[in-house]
Amino acid sequence: MTGLLPWLEWAGIAVFALTGALVAARKQMDPFGFALLGTVTGIGGGTLRDVLLGIRPVTWIIDPTAVVICAAVALAAFFTADLFEREDRARAILWADAVGLALFTATGAARALDAGAPAISAVLLGVVTATFGGIIRDILAGDVPLALRRDVYVTASLAGALAFVAVNRWVSPELDDLAGFTTT
Amino acid sequence: MTGLLPWLEWAGIAVFALTGALVAARKQMDPFGFALLGTVTGIGGGTLRDVLLGIRPVTWIIDPTAVVICAAVALAAFFTADLFEREDRARAILWADAVGLALFTATGAARALDAGAPAISAVLLGVVTATFGGIIRDILAGDVPLALRRDVYVTASLAGALAFVAVNRWVSPELDDLAGFTTT
Amino acid sequence: MTGLLPWLEWAGIAVFALTGALVAARKQMDPFGFALLGTVTGIGGGTLRDVLLGIRPVTWIIDPTAVVICAAVALAAFFTADLFEREDRARAILWADAVGLALFTATGAARALDAGAPAISAVLLGVVTATFGGIIRDILAGDVPLALRRDVYVTASLAGALAFVAVNRWVSPELDDLAGFTTT
Repeated sequence: MTGLLPWLEWAGIAVFALTGALVAARKQMDPFGFALLGTVTGIGGGTLRDVLLGIRPVTWIIDPTAVVICAAVALAAFFTADLFEREDRARAILWADAVGLALFTATGAARALDAGAPAISAVLLGVVTATFGGIIRDILAGDVPLALRRDVYVTASLAGALAFVAVNRWVSPELDDLAGFTTT
Repeated sequence: MTGLLPWLEWAGIAVFALTGALVAARKQMDPFGFALLGTVTGIGGGTLRDVLLGIRPVTWIIDPTAVVICAAVALAAFFTADLFEREDRARAILWADAVGLALFTATGAARALDAGAPAISAVLLGVVTATFGGIIRDILAGDVPLALRRDVYVTASLAGALAFVAVNRWVSPELDDLAGFTTT
Repeated sequence: MTGLLPWLEWAGIAVFALTGALVAARKQMDPFGFALLGTVTGIGGGTLRDVLLGIRPVTWIIDPTAVVICAAVALAAFFTADLFEREDRARAILWADAVGLALFTATGAARALDAGAPAISAVLLGVVTATFGGIIRDILAGDVPLALRRDVYVTASLAGALAFVAVNRWVSPELDDLAGFTTT
């Protein structure tokens, strides 16, 4: 827990939880709807990554910090949602989604390399980590997933993951420390 | 297998399988649709719980009792579905969902505590176990998940899981026997 | 890797990736949409099977051949999609789905038996492997899953899995070699 990686992950979790809460606001849900959609969106990508990598139990069961972050962000969003216009919220979802995507692409690929996955699988796991939370958020809310409506998201994540893994593996291996310090 | 826990789980599996079969009836599916939706609904929540906890392979692969229960309930529902009115079936779905939710909240949290999860994660796994089967039932059937349309379900599950874990951990630890006796 | 099983799996992966790409063509997605839907459809069923069986990490992380096959098929479909009529593509989806279903039913059940699952669980895992990729393809694309609209698919998979497991376990155990040779 001394490295940068968990902090980047928590930041990504917080912004994805915000997108879940904002979708809950659009669907006029109650506080529990906010907490549910926020939490699922925030931890969904990392959970699938852990399951595919065989990390067991998944990270948030051992250390529920991520769940607490999601619930706190979702409730804060519930009590402030009315202060913002509908269009502002829609724009905030797109921006938060993009920021979360960038953070989760890098941290997801880092965790995969750290767990010994080959480069191509690490790229894919970066994309999976970055996109899956938003996909289940949209499916639960009854929308067609944003990742499919705006392919640019997946493309950006794929390009980012390729760059991250390439740098990490062939250009500057000492970046491994990013991941290396943070195991456990 | 000497404790109460597996019986409570089988009861929960049976009532959730019934809700899946009743949704299949509303969608006028054939017997295989009944069996598919019934089984997915009945074992979905426990399967996700096992995967997140890292129990491998998941419980129903080792002991397919749960699958047999689901298939039996779904086929019984298929042959009797026409005896009931459409409104009765809709009401039966709500009631069975509530009963299954209560049973799975408690058994899911108990299994999580039993596997060594921290209290807050056990609460969450109780909610996950209780809600996930119904969520995939509704997604497969093309409906917006009942858990999101009627937040009271998730709220009830959350309250139940909190109460169960609090009693189990701090008030009356001897209740651990409920879970303790039943490991494999 | 000396047996027949991986070749049958790769064939199944390729035809399922084709169905995902053809659905992407119908939804007029860009190349990344083709690659995403193709890959998810091609590896989805085997991934869930691995997770349920507790094979960790899942097969395609260790050996990304399947991912490369999916991406190649999807991109080939993207560049040739315009050569075919809309009706031809719709028919091709149904045929490819049926072929993939048959291949994945057998290979999924074989992998499950190989991992020591009881017969009834192996039947179910054959069905899960064969149907799940197409189900998430349709959910992601915003359609009601084909497996639920055309129950005949699930029925065929169930019958195939029953036949495969019955032959494999009680009639001709030497067929075990099919699975036995291929355990990494």
